Amino acid sequence: MNKDYWLSLFNQIKKEEVGSEQFLEMVRDYPYSDLAHTKLDTHRSLFRNHAEVIYGEGKSARQIVDIVLHQKKLAETSYLITRVSRDKAESILELMPELIFDPDAAILFKAKDNINGPEVPILTGGTADYSVAKEAAITLSYLGCTPKIYADVGVFGLHRLLAIRENLLRTRVAIVIAGMEAALASVAAGLIPGLVIGVPTSVGYGSGAGGKSALLSMLNSCAPNLAVVNIDSGFKAAYLAAIAIGEKFNETTS
Amino acid sequence: MNKDYWLSLFNQIKKEEVGSEQFLEMVRDYPYSDLAHTKLDTHRSLFRNHAEVIYGEGKSARQIVDIVLHQKKLAETSYLITRVSRDKAESILELMPELIFDPDAAILFKAKDNINGPEVPILTGGTADYSVAKEAAITLSYLGCTPKIYADVGVFGLHRLLAIRENLLRTRVAIVIAGMEAALASVAAGLIPGLVIGVPTSVGYGSGAGGKSALLSMLNSCAPNLAVVNIDSGFKAAYLAAIAIGEKFNETTS
Amino acid sequence: MNKDYWLSLFNQIKKEEVGSEQFLEMVRDYPYSDLAHTKLDTHRSLFRNHAEVIYGEGKSARQIVDIVLHQKKLAETSYLITRVSRDKAESILELMPELIFDPDAAILFKAKDNINGPEVPILTGGTADYSVAKEAAITLSYLGCTPKIYADVGVFGLHRLLAIRENLLRTRVAIVIAGMEAALASVAAGLIPGLVIGVPTSVGYGSGAGGKSALLSMLNSCAPNLAVVNIDSGFKAAYLAAIAIGEKFNETTS
Amino acid sequence: MNKDYWLSLFNQIKKEEVGSEQFLEMVRDYPYSDLAHTKLDTHRSLFRNHAEVIYGEGKSARQIVDIVLHQKKLAETSYLITRVSRDKAESILELMPELIFDPDAAILFKAKDNINGPEVPILTGGTADYSVAKEAAITLSYLGCTPKIYADVGVFGLHRLLAIRENLLRTRVAIVIAGMEAALASVAAGLIPGLVIGVPTSVGYGSGAGGKSALLSMLNSCAPNLAVVNIDSGFKAAYLAAIAIGEKFNETTS
Amino acid sequence: MNKDYWLSLFNQIKKEEVGSEQFLEMVRDYPYSDLAHTKLDTHRSLFRNHAEVIYGEGKSARQIVDIVLHQKKLAETSYLITRVSRDKAESILELMPELIFDPDAAILFKAKDNINGPEVPILTGGTADYSVAKEAAITLSYLGCTPKIYADVGVFGLHRLLAIRENLLRTRVAIVIAGMEAALASVAAGLIPGLVIGVPTSVGYGSGAGGKSALLSMLNSCAPNLAVVNIDSGFKAAYLAAIAIGEKFNETTS
Amino acid sequence: MNKDYWLSLFNQIKKEEVGSEQFLEMVRDYPYSDLAHTKLDTHRSLFRNHAEVIYGEGKSARQIVDIVLHQKKLAETSYLITRVSRDKAESILELMPELIFDPDAAILFKAKDNINGPEVPILTGGTADYSVAKEAAITLSYLGCTPKIYADVGVFGLHRLLAIRENLLRTRVAIVIAGMEAALASVAAGLIPGLVIGVPTSVGYGSGAGGKSALLSMLNSCAPNLAVVNIDSGFKAAYLAAIAIGEKFNETTS
Amino acid sequence: MNKDYWLSLFNQIKKEEVGSEQFLEMVRDYPYSDLAHTKLDTHRSLFRNHAEVIYGEGKSARQIVDIVLHQKKLAETSYLITRVSRDKAESILELMPELIFDPDAAILFKAKDNINGPEVPILTGGTADYSVAKEAAITLSYLGCTPKIYADVGVFGLHRLLAIRENLLRTRVAIVIAGMEAALASVAAGLIPGLVIGVPTSVGYGSGAGGKSALLSMLNSCAPNLAVVNIDSGFKAAYLAAIAIGEKFNETTS
Amino acid sequence: MNKDYWLSLFNQIKKEEVGSEQFLEMVRDYPYSDLAHTKLDTHRSLFRNHAEVIYGEGKSARQIVDIVLHQKKLAETSYLITRVSRDKAESILELMPELIFDPDAAILFKAKDNINGPEVPILTGGTADYSVAKEAAITLSYLGCTPKIYADVGVFGLHRLLAIRENLLRTRVAIVIAGMEAALASVAAGLIPGLVIGVPTSVGYGSGAGGKSALLSMLNSCAPNLAVVNIDSGFKAAYLAAIAIGEKFNETTS
Repeated sequence: MNKDYWLSLFNQIKKEEVGSEQFLEMVRDYPYSDLAHTKLDTHRSLFRNHAEVIYGEGKSARQIVDIVLHQKKLAETSYLITRVSRDKAESILELMPELIFDPDAAILFKAKDNINGPEVPILTGGTADYSVAKEAAITLSYLGCTPKIYADVGVFGLHRLLAIRENLLRTRVAIVIAGMEAALASVAAGLIPGLVIGVPTSVGYGSGAGGKSALLSMLNSCAPNLAVVNIDSGFKAAYLAAIAIGEKFNETTS
Repeated sequence: MNKDYWLSLFNQIKKEEVGSEQFLEMVRDYPYSDLAHTKLDTHRSLFRNHAEVIYGEGKSARQIVDIVLHQKKLAETSYLITRVSRDKAESILELMPELIFDPDAAILFKAKDNINGPEVPILTGGTADYSVAKEAAITLSYLGCTPKIYADVGVFGLHRLLAIRENLLRTRVAIVIAGMEAALASVAAGLIPGLVIGVPTSVGYGSGAGGKSALLSMLNSCAPNLAVVNIDSGFKAAYLAAIAIGEKFNETTS
Repeated sequence: MNKDYWLSLFNQIKKEEVGSEQFLEMVRDYPYSDLAHTKLDTHRSLFRNHAEVIYGEGKSARQIVDIVLHQKKLAETSYLITRVSRDKAESILELMPELIFDPDAAILFKAKDNINGPEVPILTGGTADYSVAKEAAITLSYLGCTPKIYADVGVFGLHRLLAIRENLLRTRVAIVIAGMEAALASVAAGLIPGLVIGVPTSVGYGSGAGGKSALLSMLNSCAPNLAVVNIDSGFKAAYLAAIAIGEKFNETTS
Repeated sequence: MNKDYWLSLFNQIKKEEVGSEQFLEMVRDYPYSDLAHTKLDTHRSLFRNHAEVIYGEGKSARQIVDIVLHQKKLAETSYLITRVSRDKAESILELMPELIFDPDAAILFKAKDNINGPEVPILTGGTADYSVAKEAAITLSYLGCTPKIYADVGVFGLHRLLAIRENLLRTRVAIVIAGMEAALASVAAGLIPGLVIGVPTSVGYGSGAGGKSALLSMLNSCAPNLAVVNIDSGFKAAYLAAIAIGEKFNETTS
Repeated sequence: MNKDYWLSLFNQIKKEEVGSEQFLEMVRDYPYSDLAHTKLDTHRSLFRNHAEVIYGEGKSARQIVDIVLHQKKLAETSYLITRVSRDKAESILELMPELIFDPDAAILFKAKDNINGPEVPILTGGTADYSVAKEAAITLSYLGCTPKIYADVGVFGLHRLLAIRENLLRTRVAIVIAGMEAALASVAAGLIPGLVIGVPTSVGYGSGAGGKSALLSMLNSCAPNLAVVNIDSGFKAAYLAAIAIGEKFNETTS
Repeated sequence: MNKDYWLSLFNQIKKEEVGSEQFLEMVRDYPYSDLAHTKLDTHRSLFRNHAEVIYGEGKSARQIVDIVLHQKKLAETSYLITRVSRDKAESILELMPELIFDPDAAILFKAKDNINGPEVPILTGGTADYSVAKEAAITLSYLGCTPKIYADVGVFGLHRLLAIRENLLRTRVAIVIAGMEAALASVAAGLIPGLVIGVPTSVGYGSGAGGKSALLSMLNSCAPNLAVVNIDSGFKAAYLAAIAIGEKFNETTS
Repeated sequence: MNKDYWLSLFNQIKKEEVGSEQFLEMVRDYPYSDLAHTKLDTHRSLFRNHAEVIYGEGKSARQIVDIVLHQKKLAETSYLITRVSRDKAESILELMPELIFDPDAAILFKAKDNINGPEVPILTGGTADYSVAKEAAITLSYLGCTPKIYADVGVFGLHRLLAIRENLLRTRVAIVIAGMEAALASVAAGLIPGLVIGVPTSVGYGSGAGGKSALLSMLNSCAPNLAVVNIDSGFKAAYLAAIAIGEKFNETTS
Repeated sequence: MNKDYWLSLFNQIKKEEVGSEQFLEMVRDYPYSDLAHTKLDTHRSLFRNHAEVIYGEGKSARQIVDIVLHQKKLAETSYLITRVSRDKAESILELMPELIFDPDAAILFKAKDNINGPEVPILTGGTADYSVAKEAAITLSYLGCTPKIYADVGVFGLHRLLAIRENLLRTRVAIVIAGMEAALASVAAGLIPGLVIGVPTSVGYGSGAGGKSALLSMLNSCAPNLAVVNIDSGFKAAYLAAIAIGEKFNETTS
């Protein structure tokens, strides 16, 4: 139900191609479509300029296909389904081969074509944080931004971070992804003038298992420009980054 | 050490009012001043356009005065000291009567004069969240934004929130402050198109005492546009809001 | 050992069809039957009008069959066994094909025939809460109520909840099932005049994994009409709802 | 804004005693009154048959007086303010001597006159749970029920509980208040056919300090008819009890 | 290295059947045998009248066989190895067919022949606590006591517990095993004049998963005669019971 | 209501000094006396050979006096009230000067005269554990045992513990009281053949504050002869010790 | 009981100034002195080259004086008592004016005279960590090392830390003291080639209150050369640093 | 990039075997090599005398091979990769048969040849702590120290620990590895004059599962010479031990 859908509907009514009964049928779903198992938010692409993102965990392959087909019917052209297991992804891809599955990020998606929104740097503390970074990167692309990953710049070897210092000096929004003690978030936020969104990861063991240590670190950071999201939520960080950065490039493109 | 300081220095050198030795003495402190007890970040007003904010807890009245006098010497004209007890505030005010103390927010400050930056809505769940809201509001003013508090719009009486719905429809950045189960954050984020910064508060009792319940609620919110800061940190929320909103109005004013 | 059992026994004694020794043998089990592994509460259907519900976890298929056969011998006609794995259910169904297995709810049951008790609305926050909702719904049916599921009405898209607002206005008892930050419980309780029973679910990840965040949210809700049960306990919520609503329809039917 | 208020308004309009402008002024506050610090829910006495209960913690004496005076202006005749410290209560009582302060329950209230609603038993585990029981009892009275406290019937001396067994046999709703291991809740729920609302208390020490042990006990009770509220929340338990029991006696009295 | 071993050694020396060098070889291991992977306590059967009990978790089948063979060489005639998986047990039984494996208790053992020590009642809250009860029962037998299990006497159906009340009236030491809210421990301790050892179990779900709720319940019990051991530790409870009861029957048998 | 009370009553009836109505009045309270605020267990001195111990916290001075006077009327001659603040103790002592207050243990008591029961060693880890040791010691005396405190034998200076090793070799029951990491409990239990009751204390700071570290240490001890009670519960440890040791010396004295 | 004490004793025996009975009296206390409340370790100054450090919390002023006087009698010349409140310190100073009280560190001490041991850098994250740093510094002096405090070098303003980088390049042992998210520990450990001892502090608020966040950060640090001690334990960090550095300078001085 | 690499480079330049362009290519990676997935710290063998240790968890077999091959190219001759699963190890060994896999420690390594550094004792509480001890031992060897494992010397059988007391008397640095209540750490630290590094292990069950109890025990130990690392981190303990002991033997060998 994006703008094109409504504009075309408007024209069809004017041209009397659409009668009142047909019209009522078409708008019946507004503002959401009830698919029995799911109440799909259908007007989000008007309000937020993208179709509702689907959280895959806890939904069956069948339910996901239902949802995406429904979005397609409503003229959506890009899709994003997060947290999809490889098995589930394969059953879905058989039915919808136009989607792409990224196994690192566990994401199934189809992005819009020509993305040239502003760059958002994504810093990770270690190699093991990569899957969360990938979830953030694909989400950023889906939302029209250009992700730029700086992997493995954790603070123990500080020179690795200082080496990219220049690249961060004019950053308006950045994402920092780190597990264990997540000290990278505080240090990086000190080098970045803009908004930093911290994603604690569940990378770690012993007292740090599950990401609790990283989460507490980020919440208690001395950096005033660091906001925090839930453990491993690369998606949410990307979403926030896109919103924070969004107004400007949206306006220039519209 | 704000821009004026450096520009005037530049001119003084050109006019030969400042000799090289004097110059070296003046820049000796760059990039921080060592006050023995505190290493004051002195170039932040260049980089971020405001003097370093002082966290008052754990510092003596004497130390705070030292810091503010030093900032004054460096040509700062606005000051913000958070988490100052009434006793400490009174001793400081005797020496620096130009500061203002807000007992609700436990903040000692002097803001710049003509603030007309963009409006940032601050929603609170209940009457008891007011002191955190006040901390956020004064910080926003200090950073050049215009805070607008909507108090006591918690979700149990949903009509109180729906009544202000229209005011939120074009919000780019908002702050939501709530204790107990903090459901307001998720609901409000659903009504706001822009970035929402959630501040869990320590308001509550029993299993919710200390703000843990509110913090977990916000971190686990279904709203993708909700970022979180530490419990009771009105200051950090305001700081983030100002940064997120900042680019635009800064550019129009410069 | 329901009423029919006792009434028929009473008549058999009067007609001298049952002698004193036989009588003693028959009441030997009162008030419970000792099946070695389990002490089965046998007079509950007198006291509470249904056979004891069996908690399946930690019991073997063999033990469950023992129990149900014993209940059958005591003239029970409806059965409810919760938390039964698919494997266990299949072994039991071979022996007792009259039972029905619901894999979503992991429940094995046989309900009474003509259920027309009062309607109890069950609201869920998301698609992933469905199995808990199903456990509640089957239990309600078993206890003579009519469940009505409103799935996926979480608060981020508030219009989905407001769309069913009218249906809730005369609700005496409702069940709200939600994971993550469970804000739905507080909001729904504000729209419902009657008793609301909240079931936190283990749906979530990171800091919300296991349901702790949802549990704390519901316990700390600002809604005074919200009572809470253990995480994922759809059964207990249904049981409480049936008791709360029960007096009235029981009286009209007796 | 109870029924009388609206009926009298209706009649005044019919008799042309109230003009349209005056009418608009009167309904301006519907559905809540904005007292700046508090948004008071003013139509609750229509919807729920009592004025909004005020949570006193975190509100100043002045704010509480404002609220109660406003309720008075809207024709309320009963008031309930919970969690009021003795100091605050004394300042309020100077201005509003018609209120009563109960120091055990930390409640300031004025109940309706002739309460003869159904009896709700309140069981406590020990002498130290008394203040929470008192909070529940006064709230029940305020809501039109008749509280009956059975104090100090904890399970270690089981005969104390068995001695009141008969009194519980026809109970539709009961409240059980217990700290430490709160075993009373499970045992009492087994003796009561109706709905039991458990209130864990913060009575205890060591690993049980703060009520965590009691809360977990109640949430994990084997009793299916036990619902739980937050630690020390005598108010919420009473509120729930009144709602659960409410329909019937309301109907007979109307 | 039990008494018989040492007495026979003593006699062999007297009869000159054992020379000094052989003697030194034989006592070399006193007071423990170093098996490289394990330092086996070899004089415990003198001090405590039984061979050291082996904790099987974290030891390989090969290591366990080493240990038992070594104990055999030192004239032990009874063995107890706890927490042995079925796989490990089967490899061990091939080499040592004289041992018995109890799959419920996950114990591998060989008890002394004629056990007629005092009876120790073991009460369990539910059917699912049975494996812990079995671990306690076998350990008691190994240590010369007579276990008596009363299964499934949880407090919700209090009549099941009251039915065995008479059996408990002269109990000197009892074991109570319960999960979930473990209210049975407090209630049973009130009915038993002697020492009660509580074993919280990991039976439960949601907020009670892992046994935390049961553990806190027992630690915070109002019963002064209730001591607590770690979650699921049927072994330790049995060991403590045997020691507490031990003096008396040991003396009559020696 | 100890044995003397009942024997004298028996004789009075035989001698016709007590009529049936008077008799009924006298036994009216059996098995407990309802003092409104407290249900006093009055037959415990028959069952357990001492009057009910009163937990002072959460009871007013007035309530405590009521209880003790009532116990006195029932012919008790020894009393024990734990956790009494100095202020409360002083008000009580004015009315009942025969009681003794121990400020270290916060206990108010009157013990029986000639105590010569078996010795129970009490070991403490450090000087700061002394108040808990004192609570245990007075309770032991009250229950007829002879406490023997070995203070400050923590494991860092192991020679302090080894120096008392001989004294522990024939111990049937001992109490070990320790805070911080409470390693003393495991080590001492290894040196003691009998039952050891561990009392974790709240002595410690940082991550050990409140006694959590000591509690976990004792619960997870490798010593099979170590039972645990709640943090700081010197009373419960003493009670358990007295019961465990009790049978024997009771029998010799009766 | 330091070396001088024993050497002089040795000479006195040789010169027959000390007889055998007197000798026995003198060594009676070896290896500890029993002061009733405290078992003082008296041979530590032989083993570790300093008198036992006294932990002041939980000891009365009187007990502390007893201990220090006893140490004095045994020829100790330096003393260290940690965690002493100002009140307690003042009572002690009246009796022992040769001690010095440092109110920031809450330490009472008398150090040896000419300290010229190796330098140990102490880095602190913020001004509020100063009291812990002071505790570490005084302890280091007491143990013969030279503390060098670098205060307020937290990572948000990284240039403050980089400015002292050169000073750390040849550091064998350093102490890092930080609260909140304690990122300083990881970053500093990356700049220091030697052993780093991290002290988390209780500085912080909200989810970081009490030091839990800082503790977890340090335990989960990516830096392999970072060891951790308990929250706020400046003393233990200093002690460990002195031991780690000790061998070398001890050898050169002996 | 160890010393040999740089010295040979230096000579090649002098002999004009390496031109400036080639030189730039060779130093391009200084101070780290960017392998896309990993930023490898390449100058650590200069600074710390060994190649960067690779943390295997979260890295693919392919990534590990990349890293080791790169290290080889830079003239490293020893390698250490920790936390490698057997599967991953086998794929790596096919490509790099010169590495050795230790399945107990889950380590893949190649140590330098002639290790004769100082001995570091490793004490373990029980047989199940062996894998952590092995991780520490291999790491120590890799870093040039000589590990000496004393297995299964837990404190319940104190004689096992006292038997090795003499071996510990001159220890400068030791590692203590223990799970459950980890009392061994405190006791052993009391017997060792030098630095003790405690490694809590995840060995345990019930309330001790995951190592939390052992971690708290070590953090709260009364032993001032005990430093702590994360749960199960044998690697970090070994690394710290090698650094602490290092200066001396490094100097003698250089």
